[in-house]
Amino acid sequence: MSNETIALTQTVQKGGCAAKVAASELRKILSQVTFPVKHAALLVDGGLFDDAAIYKVTDEVAMVQTLDFFTPIVDTPKLFGRIAAANALSDVYAMGGRPKTAMGILAFPIATLPESVIVDVMQGASDVISEAKANFVGGHSIDDDTLKFGLSVTGFVHPDKVWSNAKAQVGDVLILTKALGTGAMTAALKRREATEHDIVEATTSMSTLNNVLDYLSADVIDSIHAATDITGFGLSGHSMQLAMASEVSLKLNFEALPKFSGILDYLEKGFLTKAHRSNALYTDASVNGEKLSPLQKLLLNDPQTSGGLLLSVRKDKASELLRQIQNPFAKSAIIGEVISRNEFRVNIA
Amino acid sequence: MSNETIALTQTVQKGGCAAKVAASELRKILSQVTFPVKHAALLVDGGLFDDAAIYKVTDEVAMVQTLDFFTPIVDTPKLFGRIAAANALSDVYAMGGRPKTAMGILAFPIATLPESVIVDVMQGASDVISEAKANFVGGHSIDDDTLKFGLSVTGFVHPDKVWSNAKAQVGDVLILTKALGTGAMTAALKRREATEHDIVEATTSMSTLNNVLDYLSADVIDSIHAATDITGFGLSGHSMQLAMASEVSLKLNFEALPKFSGILDYLEKGFLTKAHRSNALYTDASVNGEKLSPLQKLLLNDPQTSGGLLLSVRKDKASELLRQIQNPFAKSAIIGEVISRNEFRVNIA
Repeated sequence: MSNETIALTQTVQKGGCAAKVAASELRKILSQVTFPVKHAALLVDGGLFDDAAIYKVTDEVAMVQTLDFFTPIVDTPKLFGRIAAANALSDVYAMGGRPKTAMGILAFPIATLPESVIVDVMQGASDVISEAKANFVGGHSIDDDTLKFGLSVTGFVHPDKVWSNAKAQVGDVLILTKALGTGAMTAALKRREATEHDIVEATTSMSTLNNVLDYLSADVIDSIHAATDITGFGLSGHSMQLAMASEVSLKLNFEALPKFSGILDYLEKGFLTKAHRSNALYTDASVNGEKLSPLQKLLLNDPQTSGGLLLSVRKDKASELLRQIQNPFAKSAIIGEVISRNEFRVNIA
Repeated sequence: MSNETIALTQTVQKGGCAAKVAASELRKILSQVTFPVKHAALLVDGGLFDDAAIYKVTDEVAMVQTLDFFTPIVDTPKLFGRIAAANALSDVYAMGGRPKTAMGILAFPIATLPESVIVDVMQGASDVISEAKANFVGGHSIDDDTLKFGLSVTGFVHPDKVWSNAKAQVGDVLILTKALGTGAMTAALKRREATEHDIVEATTSMSTLNNVLDYLSADVIDSIHAATDITGFGLSGHSMQLAMASEVSLKLNFEALPKFSGILDYLEKGFLTKAHRSNALYTDASVNGEKLSPLQKLLLNDPQTSGGLLLSVRKDKASELLRQIQNPFAKSAIIGEVISRNEFRVNIA
């Protein structure tokens, strides 16, 4: 069996961030655990098992720590490694940090897949870690029934320059840096019903590093008040979390959302994951989308794998920010604004 | 189904560090990957997917990063969480570091196990992270066929005070801080053939944090030249790696090895794992145990989960070190010495 004939998505039930434990279940579970007393140096707590944590090392340096891993969402091992790495590194960028070290998390079915698959997955990850100018420093592997891969990443950020999700300001403009739709697209891909054009569009997006920091001038960087990356809980879940943490509400414009070309067709054809439903439940009480069609709501709840950054930016710098990241983030767009807290956390029409 | 009636080890094929991908296979696989260019700040590279990595942050502070996770090796969820946490934190201690932040790595079969199992696993881990005076800062969870749990841990150490495994000095005395035998013991436990006494002895050892640093005086700490923790590759594999990295050989005294009370009986009865064989293959050319019986060799190759630290210590401080860690490391013992490099990396009689 050569790597050309192996279709990784056929070896697992569900792939990527769609395989996450649902947020509402996690919240209930974690509320029953007594956690250790937190150090004063812990600036940002990973909280709901989802984000990066930040620990102050000196007055000049804080460490960002994050981890993410999942089952294959694409068939090609090297591409899977690329996407898993870009997805894991994204959490450091979402905090305004620069990644420095990455460790592999590998579960591998030694009995059923050839070792060359590991080589290719690792090579894909290595290539993306190189692009991030970080180090690949080891990891842990386990013999398992199904392939899983991801990274634990640490990076650094100045303690005063953290992009927390708690600092969005009323009047900020919201920018999303990648198109939505990886959940439905990868479901279609797994069932062999996606076109080559659409596959390339989605996999290119998921393989793209969220290193917007590397493209921005200092004044534009300083205009970013808050950020988060859009992953398993979808635009609805992650924008809701940002609004809650910042004690504001968000007003989003559905027409302005960047999305993959044929994505509404794929959603209409029923290429859905369990997370489409659990994300809807998770956000139901806080996201007001009453003017949207059921199909449009599915896009909001589509679980993203290696999705874009949602940036909350000072209004006068928003168009300059878009200009600076246009290449490679051609789909990036202004999708709404931050408003005073009202009945709903997110209002979309 | 209550947590009292769930036997976690019955839900998986193999547990703990015995489920690792064999070292010889990993070496072959990783040699085919082109890794990113390393930064000068990377003081210790995790290399063979097994150890912690160390990255220099300032002249005074280096970050230690590590991760470990595995399937259940005991039946009780809280105990499994304790052991998995102690095992993961151990890699930071093995570098002379103090852990500061830990993130959970959780794969959980939502359809077949009650959520209370997650609560108990997390609580066990939280309790040990508290003992380590570290923070539990989030993590990542995935819906999976079998339960797996572990931690990604970061800590800090002074760049000049790293216990690398590359600095053992000829004339040093070797101290092992925990008894050997967790591989065979947990195999017997899984098959319900271990006595209560032996189960308590092994699980207490595996739940014990390797925080020897918290018990040692400054002069004794300074006498420790090198360290490693004994995990999946057994005493043979990890002592071989330490000897190779330090360009020395080790002379070990079999009779001096701390081991669980009935462990040779369990090994004789055939409570073995795949790792007993793969560790033997991995170390065959480098470990000279020709005077040992086949049974004694099995103990050397027994894969440890949350095993002890192997410390390479200046001879005149060895007995003082043993005295300072006697409680809680009652089984700790001098097991040999560092000698000039000879034909074998490890010589044991």
